[in-house]
Amino acid sequence: MSSQESQDENEDVQGERDDQDVLTILVATDIHLGYGEKDLLIAEDSFDTFEEILRHAKEENADFLLLGGDLFHDTRPSSYALNKCIELLKRYCLGDRPIQIEFLSDPAFNFSSTVNDTVNYEDPNLNVELPVFSIHGNHDDPTGVQQISALNILSSTGLVNYFGRYNSYESIDIEPILLKKGRTKLALYGLSHIKDEKLARLFTAHRVSFMTPSDTDSWFHLLVLHQNRANRGAKCFIPDEALPSVLDLVIWGHEHDCRINPEQTGNDVFITQPGSSVATSLCVGESLEKHIGLLKIHKNQFNLRAIPLKTVRPFIFSELVFTEEDKVENPRELSDHQELARKVVGKKVEEMLEKALSLGREGNKLPLIRLNVSYIDETQAFNPIRFGEAYVGRVANPGDMVKVKHLSARQAFRRNKNKSNDEDFEEVAEEEIPARVEDLVLEYFESGQTRPLEFMPLKALNETVSKCIESDNMDYIESVINHFIADRQAKLEAGNVSIDKMDEFLESLRVNEENDAQMIRDVLNRTKSPRKRTKNNSNDSEDSDEESTDMSIRTVDSPPPDQERPKTGPGSRGGRVPARGRGSRGGRGSRARGKANA
Amino acid sequence: MSSQESQDENEDVQGERDDQDVLTILVATDIHLGYGEKDLLIAEDSFDTFEEILRHAKEENADFLLLGGDLFHDTRPSSYALNKCIELLKRYCLGDRPIQIEFLSDPAFNFSSTVNDTVNYEDPNLNVELPVFSIHGNHDDPTGVQQISALNILSSTGLVNYFGRYNSYESIDIEPILLKKGRTKLALYGLSHIKDEKLARLFTAHRVSFMTPSDTDSWFHLLVLHQNRANRGAKCFIPDEALPSVLDLVIWGHEHDCRINPEQTGNDVFITQPGSSVATSLCVGESLEKHIGLLKIHKNQFNLRAIPLKTVRPFIFSELVFTEEDKVENPRELSDHQELARKVVGKKVEEMLEKALSLGREGNKLPLIRLNVSYIDETQAFNPIRFGEAYVGRVANPGDMVKVKHLSARQAFRRNKNKSNDEDFEEVAEEEIPARVEDLVLEYFESGQTRPLEFMPLKALNETVSKCIESDNMDYIESVINHFIADRQAKLEAGNVSIDKMDEFLESLRVNEENDAQMIRDVLNRTKSPRKRTKNNSNDSEDSDEESTDMSIRTVDSPPPDQERPKTGPGSRGGRVPARGRGSRGGRGSRARGKANA
Repeated sequence: MSSQESQDENEDVQGERDDQDVLTILVATDIHLGYGEKDLLIAEDSFDTFEEILRHAKEENADFLLLGGDLFHDTRPSSYALNKCIELLKRYCLGDRPIQIEFLSDPAFNFSSTVNDTVNYEDPNLNVELPVFSIHGNHDDPTGVQQISALNILSSTGLVNYFGRYNSYESIDIEPILLKKGRTKLALYGLSHIKDEKLARLFTAHRVSFMTPSDTDSWFHLLVLHQNRANRGAKCFIPDEALPSVLDLVIWGHEHDCRINPEQTGNDVFITQPGSSVATSLCVGESLEKHIGLLKIHKNQFNLRAIPLKTVRPFIFSELVFTEEDKVENPRELSDHQELARKVVGKKVEEMLEKALSLGREGNKLPLIRLNVSYIDETQAFNPIRFGEAYVGRVANPGDMVKVKHLSARQAFRRNKNKSNDEDFEEVAEEEIPARVEDLVLEYFESGQTRPLEFMPLKALNETVSKCIESDNMDYIESVINHFIADRQAKLEAGNVSIDKMDEFLESLRVNEENDAQMIRDVLNRTKSPRKRTKNNSNDSEDSDEESTDMSIRTVDSPPPDQERPKTGPGSRGGRVPARGRGSRGGRGSRARGKANA
Repeated sequence: MSSQESQDENEDVQGERDDQDVLTILVATDIHLGYGEKDLLIAEDSFDTFEEILRHAKEENADFLLLGGDLFHDTRPSSYALNKCIELLKRYCLGDRPIQIEFLSDPAFNFSSTVNDTVNYEDPNLNVELPVFSIHGNHDDPTGVQQISALNILSSTGLVNYFGRYNSYESIDIEPILLKKGRTKLALYGLSHIKDEKLARLFTAHRVSFMTPSDTDSWFHLLVLHQNRANRGAKCFIPDEALPSVLDLVIWGHEHDCRINPEQTGNDVFITQPGSSVATSLCVGESLEKHIGLLKIHKNQFNLRAIPLKTVRPFIFSELVFTEEDKVENPRELSDHQELARKVVGKKVEEMLEKALSLGREGNKLPLIRLNVSYIDETQAFNPIRFGEAYVGRVANPGDMVKVKHLSARQAFRRNKNKSNDEDFEEVAEEEIPARVEDLVLEYFESGQTRPLEFMPLKALNETVSKCIESDNMDYIESVINHFIADRQAKLEAGNVSIDKMDEFLESLRVNEENDAQMIRDVLNRTKSPRKRTKNNSNDSEDSDEESTDMSIRTVDSPPPDQERPKTGPGSRGGRVPARGRGSRGGRGSRARGKANA
C-alpha cells in the first residue's frame, strides 16, 4: 500500500471496495507526438508509446485518460502526426463500453475555448467508450490570429475534451470539471500552459483562484498543470509551495524527468510528475525509466500506481572524465593518448549497450546512447563523429552518441570530486549552466570546434552581449554591428584594397582587438535604449508587483477591489452545477483533510 | 427540362418519379478552405461558402455530398482552417437522418489510402446523416515522406470518405465505389489529382482503365477528377475527348470558371465543370457567378440543377484601353492627360460597384473589383495604388483594384479591335498568355517596372531558358550560371579591380551582349543533360509512348503483357462486389446508351 492510501471505513482503494465508487484515471503527460518524425529510425517512437498508453487505459478499464499537455511536439503538428493521432484516438476511444462517470459541471464554462457544448461522451452522434481530458502544453499551445491549438482540432473531432485554457492577463479563476462516480466526487482543475513569467506574476499578485464547489470537503480536488517546476530563473517557475492546500493531488506536466511517486509539500498537497513518455533530448533526466500513472480515487483517498512504459526506446546516459592520470605513461606518439581515450570510451559504450539490452523493452529498438566525455589535456581529444560511425546499426544516434568537451582546471577539479556520482542530474545541471552568458560565448568560440569570428573581434562581441544582458535591451547589438560595418567599409575604401587582398587587410585590422573594444565601448555609451524608454512611458500595471516575492495563493472569499468579477456568476448558470461559488471557496487550511500522510 | 433528361417509362427525374429510386447528389468543387485567411477582411469567405454548400446539401436532402478536390487551399492547412472544416463537417454531417444508399463495393479497394475499413456511414461509432465523398486536388494533395493529404485527416476523423487516389507510374485501374438507391445503381469513379503531364502520358499509353461492373448498362457511370482541362501546353492537360464513352457524366474539378451546364463530347460523355466556390485570383474566369450542382440520377438518366451560391463575395472584372484619342486635346500640362484617365477609370469603377451591389449577395460583403487599364502613351499612366486608397471601405481589395499596363502598338491594335467585347474571357486569355516563356521573360524585364539584370545579360538568360524548355531539362541553368560566375570572377581578378570600381567594371562587361550570348551557346552545347541520361539508362517505360498523340482509353479485356495485374483480382475479394471484373469492361461504344441527347 503506497503512502497516499489510508484505511477508510475498512475499505481499500484497490481491494474489496466497491468498484462503483472508485474512479480510475490513467494519467500521462508530455507525449510529444511527432518528435523526431523526420528521422525515420525514431519517427514512430512517440506514436508507439501513445498507443501503449491508450492500450493501458483500455486494459485497466480506466474511466478516463488524463493528459498533462504537450500531446504534440509541434505547435503546428505535421499532417502525419495529426492524422496518426486522430486515427489512434478513434481506434481506442470509440466503442460500446459503458461510461460510468457523471458530468456535473457547466460545459459552457469548462469547454469555453472549444466549439463543443458538452463533454464528448454526451454527444449523441459519437459512441465514446474512453473519454480523454487534456490541457495544452507549451508545445501545443494556441497559435495564429485565431489562437487555435492542435487540441482544438482534436476537440472539434469529438475525440478529446480540451479544458483549462485561460487567457486573461488580469486574473485566473480555475473552474473545475465536476465528475461523479458512485460516492466519489472529483473536482478536476486544469491549467493549460501559460508563459511561466506571467503565471508566476499572477500567483504573486494573488490573482489565481480555484473555484471549489461549496461542499468542498466532500470532493477530491485534482489539478493538472503544465509549467516549469524546476527553478529555471527567478519568476520563471511555480514553486511547489505555491499550490494551495485545498488541492489533494497535482499532476505536473512539462518536466520530462519521471518523479511519478507523489511527493508531499509543506501545504499538504501531493504532487506527481509523471514525466515525458519519449526522450526529446539526450540528458540524464530523460534517461530515467518512463512511466504513466494509474490513479484510483475513492472519496478523499487516492492511490497512484506507476506503470513502466515498455515501448520506450532504451536510452542510457553516462559521463566520463579524463584527467592527467588517464594518459599513456611513455607515449611514442601524441596520438597514443587519443588511442587510449578511444579504448576507454569504447569499453564504456559497450557497458551502456549491455545495460540498454537489460531493460527488456518491447520492439527491439536500437538504443539511444549518450556519453559525455570531458578532458583536460588537448592530446586526449578525439573525433566523436568518426567514433560514432562504428556504431551505425547498433545505436539509434551514432552521430551524437559521444560528446567531448574540454574542461578548465576548475571544472575538472569539481567534476572529479563527483566522479563516482556520474549520473547525478543535479550536479550535471549545475555544471551545464554557465554562470554568465559571456562565458558561454567564449566557451563556444574557444572550443576549437567552431570557426573563429572573422569580421568582429570576440572581445567586442562579448562586451556588447554583456551590455545587452545588463540593460535587458537587444538594440545595442544592432548599433554595434552597424558601426562595425561602417568602420570596416571606410577603412577598405581608404586603403583602396583590391579584391584578392581583402582577407589579408581585414585580418590586419583584427590584430588590434583592444582598439576595437574601445570603439565598441564608445558606441555602447552613445546608444540610447529605446525599448526601456517605451516601457517607462507605458502602463506599468504588468510590473506593479514585480518586487514582491510572496508566492501565496489567493483563496479568500471575495476578490480584492482591484479585480473584476467574472461576468457570469455561478448563480446565473444552468442548473447542472451543484451549489458552489465564490462564497464557499475552501480557505487555506480551513478544511479537514481526509487523506492520511505517510 | 434540361438536355440531359429524357422520358423514360413515363417518369421524370424531378417529377412524379418515386423518390426512392432517385439518387440526389450535391456536387461542389474547389472550395479552397483557408484561401486569404491572413487577410482578415476576406478570411472567412471560403468557410462561409462551405457552410452554405453544406446547408444546401441538408436542405435539398441530398443522399451525399460529392467534392471534386481542393477542399483546402494549402497542402498543409493552418490549424484554423482544419479546425473550422472539421467543426462544420461535424455540425452538418452527423445526425439522425437515415441513410438511403447501399454501399456495394469493397471498401478495402475504394479507401485503400485511408485507415478506414468501411464507408463512414457504416461506422458503428458514428452517427452520419450526410456522407461526404471527396477526391484530393493539387492544393490538398498528399505531402511528406508518408504522403498524407489533409483529406486523410478528415477521413481518419470519419467525416469524409476520401477515395480515388492512385499513385502508380505504370498504370491506373480506377475502381468505382458502387452505390445503390432503390432501382438506381451508381458506379462512382474518382481520380484524385495526378501531375498533369504524368496522367496525360498514362492516357496516351492506354494505361488508364475504368473497372466497370459486369452488368455495365444497368449502372450510371460518374467520374470525378481534378486536372487541367484547359490547354495549358501540350501534354499538360486531359482533352475532353480522352474520356471514354462508358462514362455518363464527368464532374471536372480544378478549373475555376463555372461551366456547370453539362457539355457533351464527341464520345457521348457529358461534362460538368462547377468551378470554384471562392475566387482565388482576380481574373475574368473567377468573376463568373459561382454555382454548385444538384445532381439527380434515376437509372440511366440524370438532371443537373445549378444552384447559385449566395454567400460568395461579389467580384466584378472589367478592362479599359486608353488610346491616343483618350487624351486631352489642348493640355495645359502633361498631368492633364492623367487627370482625364483617372476620371474615366473612376467612372468605370463606380459602374462596377453598382453592378456588384445588383448581384444581391448575402452578408453585405465589400466587393472585389478588378479593372485592368491599358495605355499606349506614357502620359496616360497614373499610380493605381494611390488611386485605390480612395476606395478603402468600399471595395475589399483597394490595393490591387486597378492594374495599369503599357501596351505595345501591336497589342493596342488587337485590343482595340475587341474593345466592345471587353469581358470576353477567350480574348483576354489569348492576350494574357504569351506564345513563349521567353516572351514572358522579355516582357517582365522590359516592362520598366523591374530592375534590369545587373549580372547576366538578358539575351544570355533567354537563350538558356529557351534551351531548358526545349530539352525539358533545368540543369542547363545551373551550368550557365556557374560558367558566368567563373567568367566574371576571372575577369575581375585579371583586371585587379578595386572595390569602388567594381560596378563600373561589370557594367563595361555587359556592353557586349553578343559575346556573352555566344559564350552561353558554347556552354549549352557542351552541357550534357544528366536527367535525360539517367532516364535513358533506367527503365524507359515512362517515355515509351511519348511520341504517340492518340489519347484514347484502354478498355480492352486483358492487360497487355508488359503490365502487371493487380495483386488481388476481383475473384479473391469479399463477396460484396457484384460480379464485375476485367473480363467485362464496357468497350468503346459497345453498350447501348440509355440517355437521350438533346
